Amino acid sequence: MTEPLDVAGLQRRLVEFAAARDWQPYHTPKNLAAALSVEASELLEIFQWLTPEESARVMSDPGTAHRVTDEVADVLAYLLQLCATLGVDPLAALAAKIERNERRFPVPGGGGPEAT
Amino acid sequence: MTEPLDVAGLQRRLVEFAAARDWQPYHTPKNLAAALSVEASELLEIFQWLTPEESARVMSDPGTAHRVTDEVADVLAYLLQLCATLGVDPLAALAAKIERNERRFPVPGGGGPEAT
Amino acid sequence: MTEPLDVAGLQRRLVEFAAARDWQPYHTPKNLAAALSVEASELLEIFQWLTPEESARVMSDPGTAHRVTDEVADVLAYLLQLCATLGVDPLAALAAKIERNERRFPVPGGGGPEAT
Amino acid sequence: MTEPLDVAGLQRRLVEFAAARDWQPYHTPKNLAAALSVEASELLEIFQWLTPEESARVMSDPGTAHRVTDEVADVLAYLLQLCATLGVDPLAALAAKIERNERRFPVPGGGGPEAT
Repeated sequence: MTEPLDVAGLQRRLVEFAAARDWQPYHTPKNLAAALSVEASELLEIFQWLTPEESARVMSDPGTAHRVTDEVADVLAYLLQLCATLGVDPLAALAAKIERNERRFPVPGGGGPEAT
Repeated sequence: MTEPLDVAGLQRRLVEFAAARDWQPYHTPKNLAAALSVEASELLEIFQWLTPEESARVMSDPGTAHRVTDEVADVLAYLLQLCATLGVDPLAALAAKIERNERRFPVPGGGGPEAT
Repeated sequence: MTEPLDVAGLQRRLVEFAAARDWQPYHTPKNLAAALSVEASELLEIFQWLTPEESARVMSDPGTAHRVTDEVADVLAYLLQLCATLGVDPLAALAAKIERNERRFPVPGGGGPEAT
Repeated sequence: MTEPLDVAGLQRRLVEFAAARDWQPYHTPKNLAAALSVEASELLEIFQWLTPEESARVMSDPGTAHRVTDEVADVLAYLLQLCATLGVDPLAALAAKIERNERRFPVPGGGGPEAT
């Protein structure tokens, strides 16, 4: 594994992985959005019967920690493949959203040094 | 916005955003997993009645393109916040998964020029 | 509304409702399964930031109670339409499942009159 | 199986099943809503890579038909348990929703015998 761990590199590997197996016909935006939703539910399934406190300790059990990490990978994989298919830059989308939210939900009392 | 668009930087901004608004008590792993699943469904909702062909053209309508980009941002935001809370590195998780899948689903015929 | 409130009657009205509006081409099993999943997430969204205790009191607020009831109706509507399209009897499916589960998860201590 | 296959009877058996196994502490409305959403996604998973045409033929394969029927049962089970916990009548909720939708989406051209 000498390949750098950045989003663009991983996205390229996912696209090449699917192309090498002729999976592109299945990877319509609609199917990828469904698969993303299914994987997010598999992640939720791990937590569904836990109390809030139990859910905070979920990584202390190695088996559960592995399962959580694996489902996180699946969610990210389908999100990046969907973005590749649609031509959406997920990091730019998130940066723009954070900025909109910073204006939409101002910190109570102002926040930041200038507020004093 | 001079802040670099990398996953770690965005994750830090999301955590600071929630902390400044005292939202951490709500951000249990269980709640974040539920919110991630809800946002993934909002993304799927855009595609639910479309044919495969219509779903491939979804970015050609500016209003729908904006909605898709916004929901992608929401999914990524909750995924990164969940990972921050759990101490999971999402890019390392995905890289490990891709390598497992490359062994699990070998390319038919070998793949790559060296295979010939 | 003199029509009886049974599952078969409601299912028939849903099918006629869709047919009268020429919505059947959209109502493939795949699309209905996606819509069912989206509606179930909208129901979950009401609960996603609540503590277990708050979630138990959700019907005491009239606005939230109305929203819950409405989402329950949407989930049931898509489930019944999916079943109609597939020819699945949902009540028979559930009865069979309960019987399988009664064998799979025997009551600790035996349960039932013979257990005494 | 002499018990009648109606919604109220099935709901009662589900509640008794959970009570006999001391599962009520897990059955908060929030957890049941999460479980319902997870089961709806398991149903969607069956369809996620299928074309619309393939999705219409899903019951012709006995194995897939069994899986579909089983997931339908799980979705209905959690929906009925959630309704029991919240005191919501799902059939009345759906009947009210259908009537609202009949006013909200009038049939094009009028519909009904009076329209002629």
